[in-house]
Amino acid sequence: MKLTVLGCHSGSLRWGAFATSQVLEVAGRVFLIDCGEGTQMQLRKNKVKFSRIKQIFISHLHGDHFYGLIGLISTLQLLGREASLTLYGPKGIKEIIELQLKLSQAYIQFPLAFVELDSLSPQLVYEDDKVKVTTIPLRHRIYCNGYLFEEKLGLRRIDIDKANEAEIDFAYFNKLKQGFDVPNSKGKRIINADVTKDPFPPKKYAFCSDTAFYPKIIKQIKGVDMLYHESTFLESEQYLCERTMHSTAKQAATIALQAKVGNLILGHYSGRYPDKEEFRREAQKVFEKVLLAEDGKKFEF
Amino acid sequence: MKLTVLGCHSGSLRWGAFATSQVLEVAGRVFLIDCGEGTQMQLRKNKVKFSRIKQIFISHLHGDHFYGLIGLISTLQLLGREASLTLYGPKGIKEIIELQLKLSQAYIQFPLAFVELDSLSPQLVYEDDKVKVTTIPLRHRIYCNGYLFEEKLGLRRIDIDKANEAEIDFAYFNKLKQGFDVPNSKGKRIINADVTKDPFPPKKYAFCSDTAFYPKIIKQIKGVDMLYHESTFLESEQYLCERTMHSTAKQAATIALQAKVGNLILGHYSGRYPDKEEFRREAQKVFEKVLLAEDGKKFEF
Repeated sequence: MKLTVLGCHSGSLRWGAFATSQVLEVAGRVFLIDCGEGTQMQLRKNKVKFSRIKQIFISHLHGDHFYGLIGLISTLQLLGREASLTLYGPKGIKEIIELQLKLSQAYIQFPLAFVELDSLSPQLVYEDDKVKVTTIPLRHRIYCNGYLFEEKLGLRRIDIDKANEAEIDFAYFNKLKQGFDVPNSKGKRIINADVTKDPFPPKKYAFCSDTAFYPKIIKQIKGVDMLYHESTFLESEQYLCERTMHSTAKQAATIALQAKVGNLILGHYSGRYPDKEEFRREAQKVFEKVLLAEDGKKFEF
Repeated sequence: MKLTVLGCHSGSLRWGAFATSQVLEVAGRVFLIDCGEGTQMQLRKNKVKFSRIKQIFISHLHGDHFYGLIGLISTLQLLGREASLTLYGPKGIKEIIELQLKLSQAYIQFPLAFVELDSLSPQLVYEDDKVKVTTIPLRHRIYCNGYLFEEKLGLRRIDIDKANEAEIDFAYFNKLKQGFDVPNSKGKRIINADVTKDPFPPKKYAFCSDTAFYPKIIKQIKGVDMLYHESTFLESEQYLCERTMHSTAKQAATIALQAKVGNLILGHYSGRYPDKEEFRREAQKVFEKVLLAEDGKKFEF
């Protein structure tokens, strides 16, 4: 999986501080997650081809997570897009987008579908042969979901040397990948595990923004390779978390620790902290493997 | 008057090519004209204080002219604004903004007023003691207005040397400015014109975007000091103007010539032209005083 952070700051759009948006590339798919104002500009800057995005997942209807959506859709139309686009987000997102298109008399030529969410339990919202995406209900001031992106278990990997040594015809390789035993050129049955290796372990990425400290999500994100968890504040401003339903770096790290994740990425920083390293220092007192989101930063895992 | 171009490109938001937005400062007022995506970022970059903007004039509901509005309003709320804000724009603008605020459960604390427009004739939409603003109905694919900003005639200017020589008490200066004759310290009547100069001629600025070639506006913008007229295309792409209801540089210059304006600013350039000087060259064949808008460029007049 390859994650590109387009924007990772909370609140209003500023030069050098874009609002939340991320691109996740997995098994050839390109998912856009949240879409703050100016996201289309960040997509261009980070050389993400618009045409490759087929799904957009919106966490909630606060402006810093979706005000860039209508501009992006309009641009796709201008660019003559033909491929379909599906938007996942809270109930209401369809009305907002359609009203703006109607009043600008814009007729979107490509298939634009909406999947509106209002469930308070995790829901499988996207699935194909390689990937599935499930909502992670969060605790925020308004209805809000994170998203869990999971690769499916891939095919077994053929050990070419062993397969050749066992004299297996190339025609059987697909069956080998699928886990079957196959006959060799002399008609002898070859045990699958003798000539193949386990598939690569499927990767998991959990996106959790915006949310108050919410241990209920731990069960769902257990053992993910990478967790993005918002950390709007530091512990010194913990009192603001209550009011605004955000988390501190320490709280994010506590979730990461208890969920035994591989790595934790922090982001959604409040503009009040000039030094983002403070977030890392606070989180690392609880959980070692902490990374800091930055606009334009890429993470591969 | 001082005009700051925040963005002057047509179509989608790109790095170094912001969509339409301008700030006009006149007699201490700060008007925002159109508000494409990312305008709040450009306001910060150009050091325009958000708090000084009390009126926003939107020409029409195509995205490149107003998608930045909801983000700006949300930011004003985050900044704790208390002063009122009035939005002028086509009918429908209120529904769009209010729907987004409702779905994000944002309760705007400052007085936010809407003046929705649907008249096809020029309308006086704003007036105070120093300035008035009138719509300029344009010809575009959807309902669209330009705006004419006019200073009112100011006070007469006292010639201090002559007033002192005539022995006029300071207490009479306000009456002098208002054009009255006044008595001097010896009781002699002093003729106003002998000790004052005419007021500075009031300045006029006309903003005309987006529009097809539309000579009907000439009467209304006659003699303005500065005309901003869109020039999306060059004459070589004149056929695109028919379909999209935009103007060429030559057409903009023709309007400027016939309206006998002081200067013409071109903008709303299509992204297809790498060299903006082509717009100037084409326009100057018709009208000499041509200026080119650029993001961040300031014009004083």
